[in-house]
Amino acid sequence: MEEKDQILEELNDLLEQKKYKILAAQLQELNEFDIAAYLDELTPEQVLVLFRMLPKDLSADVFSEMGIDNQTRIVESISAAELNDIVENLAMDDAVDMIEELPANLVKKVLQSATADTRKIINQYLKYPDNSAGSIMTAEYIALKKWMSVPQALKYIREHAVDSETIYTCYVTNYQRELEGVVTLKDLVISDPDKGLEELMDDNVISAYTMEDQEMVAQTFNKYDLLALPVVDLENRVVGIITVDDMVDVMEQEATEDIEKMAALSPSEKPYLSTSVFTLAKNRIFWLLFLMISSMLTGHLLTKYEDAFAVVPLLVTFIPMMTGTGGNAGSQSATLVIRGMTVGDIKTGDFLKVWWKEIRVAFLCGVVLAGVNFIRLSLQYPGKTMIILTVVLSMFGTIIIAKSIGCLLPIVAKLIHVDPAIMASPLISTIVDCLSLLLYFQVACVLIGL
Amino acid sequence: MEEKDQILEELNDLLEQKKYKILAAQLQELNEFDIAAYLDELTPEQVLVLFRMLPKDLSADVFSEMGIDNQTRIVESISAAELNDIVENLAMDDAVDMIEELPANLVKKVLQSATADTRKIINQYLKYPDNSAGSIMTAEYIALKKWMSVPQALKYIREHAVDSETIYTCYVTNYQRELEGVVTLKDLVISDPDKGLEELMDDNVISAYTMEDQEMVAQTFNKYDLLALPVVDLENRVVGIITVDDMVDVMEQEATEDIEKMAALSPSEKPYLSTSVFTLAKNRIFWLLFLMISSMLTGHLLTKYEDAFAVVPLLVTFIPMMTGTGGNAGSQSATLVIRGMTVGDIKTGDFLKVWWKEIRVAFLCGVVLAGVNFIRLSLQYPGKTMIILTVVLSMFGTIIIAKSIGCLLPIVAKLIHVDPAIMASPLISTIVDCLSLLLYFQVACVLIGL
Repeated sequence: MEEKDQILEELNDLLEQKKYKILAAQLQELNEFDIAAYLDELTPEQVLVLFRMLPKDLSADVFSEMGIDNQTRIVESISAAELNDIVENLAMDDAVDMIEELPANLVKKVLQSATADTRKIINQYLKYPDNSAGSIMTAEYIALKKWMSVPQALKYIREHAVDSETIYTCYVTNYQRELEGVVTLKDLVISDPDKGLEELMDDNVISAYTMEDQEMVAQTFNKYDLLALPVVDLENRVVGIITVDDMVDVMEQEATEDIEKMAALSPSEKPYLSTSVFTLAKNRIFWLLFLMISSMLTGHLLTKYEDAFAVVPLLVTFIPMMTGTGGNAGSQSATLVIRGMTVGDIKTGDFLKVWWKEIRVAFLCGVVLAGVNFIRLSLQYPGKTMIILTVVLSMFGTIIIAKSIGCLLPIVAKLIHVDPAIMASPLISTIVDCLSLLLYFQVACVLIGL
Repeated sequence: MEEKDQILEELNDLLEQKKYKILAAQLQELNEFDIAAYLDELTPEQVLVLFRMLPKDLSADVFSEMGIDNQTRIVESISAAELNDIVENLAMDDAVDMIEELPANLVKKVLQSATADTRKIINQYLKYPDNSAGSIMTAEYIALKKWMSVPQALKYIREHAVDSETIYTCYVTNYQRELEGVVTLKDLVISDPDKGLEELMDDNVISAYTMEDQEMVAQTFNKYDLLALPVVDLENRVVGIITVDDMVDVMEQEATEDIEKMAALSPSEKPYLSTSVFTLAKNRIFWLLFLMISSMLTGHLLTKYEDAFAVVPLLVTFIPMMTGTGGNAGSQSATLVIRGMTVGDIKTGDFLKVWWKEIRVAFLCGVVLAGVNFIRLSLQYPGKTMIILTVVLSMFGTIIIAKSIGCLLPIVAKLIHVDPAIMASPLISTIVDCLSLLLYFQVACVLIGL
């Protein structure tokens, strides 16, 4: 690591002195990830100058790791021949990812610079819906035939290793390209060389269908600790593979999406800093408006009790505590249930078990919170027994209501095929706000006799 | 997949007929993940009967994939000799994971049944703090020496493959066991057999230090698309490796932890359904109490304005909308910033950029939300111009305040080395509740002249 810091320091010196040629040569000491990270920090002009000085075989690797802003600039400024070099050397999934992000005129430039074969594959990939297994797979994999012997297989792997995303998991197909088995490089390396693949392979292959949702694919990876997964079409023919490094990106992206939905945000496509103010506002305004209008209804219900708070204005001062605590209690339950369903710990059939658990948790929490209020109010407002009782009873009731709604709504959402994540804190807070205030003022009316 | 369903159906038939012996034989058709998942659905008695019928070499694999409840039961009931078989065949990280979860008396049983060597390694592993690289690494890796030739290396790998977590990434060390380089099985398979490892290896190895936080390790995996990472001690000697499948679990666990913290929950160790009601309540009560007491202060501030809502009770009916919308707007910003920092898109140095962006987003959202309120209130309460103005201006101000606090607090948290995730929605809602109500009643006092 210290070594790397030293290299970065040298690079910055060279950059200041505008010694780009030496700088480009020095850059090659780093791996493609670090080169891309380094370039992404520079000005657009510096990026273009340095990128074109990289050797051909390295430039495609670096390109695929760069940010979309710099990718766009590079595609814009380089010649068709240079672009062809890059596109032909990109892994198919990286090429498709880039094309999906580029503006239309540049997509045309990329496709024109590609060879006819590459263009055909790219166009085929672009047909798979976003977030499907097909959209994240890559075509560069090792397909062995089941009549091969171990040495034949190893020879084939050696010859095709450079163009493959992984050589550690190889798929075995028959004459019709149908998936028949899987064999790992480990099996091949440690096995008896006299064996044939048909004998060696595991014919219990776990695969994904092209149109399968990437979230399901991520769960499969996680469950079976896979390094790669074959993607098959309806006829069980292998059309591509997904490797674990791409899957890790998908998992991160899915977690971000869930977290965003749970905070009442429409999921964003790009990193925060490269998203425009307008898009950010657009992603937020729908939920803000929807929830604001819902809370207007809560407010409207309160008009029924205007007389109550005109007579006992003290009641109003407990509103923030009542709605705030109810919202927090509800979103705690909702979050645990939503996450539990995402990682597969909770199934919709568990709803009674979950509810019973939450009721008991709510009872414990409710007793503590109501108790603290009782002590505090007895000290602060001695003698105002009915107001104290109102607050304490409503607080307890609010916790029970909040935790019940918090745990049940996400499960209901799942049952009616709505994403549970959108049932999280903000929506539940709004519903709980409404119910807890109704309970509070109803109890007040009865106890204080308003 | 259909084939698997058929097997499961057969298994259930055999289970009903209590034909355990045939059932155990049939089970071996499945892989260890599916067997463990199947057993975890059965009753404790069935699990014990079937588990003991599994062949020795399979039982350790299945054991490591089972839930902790079943692991505990098995450890409790089997003999020391049977336990020894399992412990010696477990990967070191799985053994350590299990021991950390077991009750103390069973830990003793496990350690006593292990050989002296295994016990020594386990004890060493148990010393690493939770969530450190050391606590998740495993000792079973391929360590090559730099003076080996390619055929020597391949021979060594072949001999040690069975006991290794991965053979695809091998680490090259010198006489002092210091990490000198990394070589992949791919390099070895496709390279010229006359080459030596010293020539072939990449001496630019990315490694983790034993005490490094697992979240940092996950980021390294993600950045460099690694399949495995060596863990070194202070003297740069390799003490273990972390493989990508274990890392995927860590990533899921870290995402769960962040989501839980963002909903004001103390992170839980176990799946929801196996956590006791008491623990669940304990994980929630701290934040509920803390936030409730904070919102008591907000309520207390309101007592200053009791006269205002005695005179104009209508003002009270807008409280849920004001606090609810402020809370939602603030938690949207906080969530984006927290997640952006977690995945590395936003750095603390970006705080001015982020704030300026949020101010503009808040302006757009504020105008829309205030506008909707203006239209609605003009229709509903024509003539009450000052009340309408109060609500509209306070709404706009609340959004600006909420988004500013929402984006800045997590960055401040990071700067003072507090986990930004705990600055999420609930805490921000509570602060925004307080500020928005103060603003609202202050504006009301000025405009309505209370």
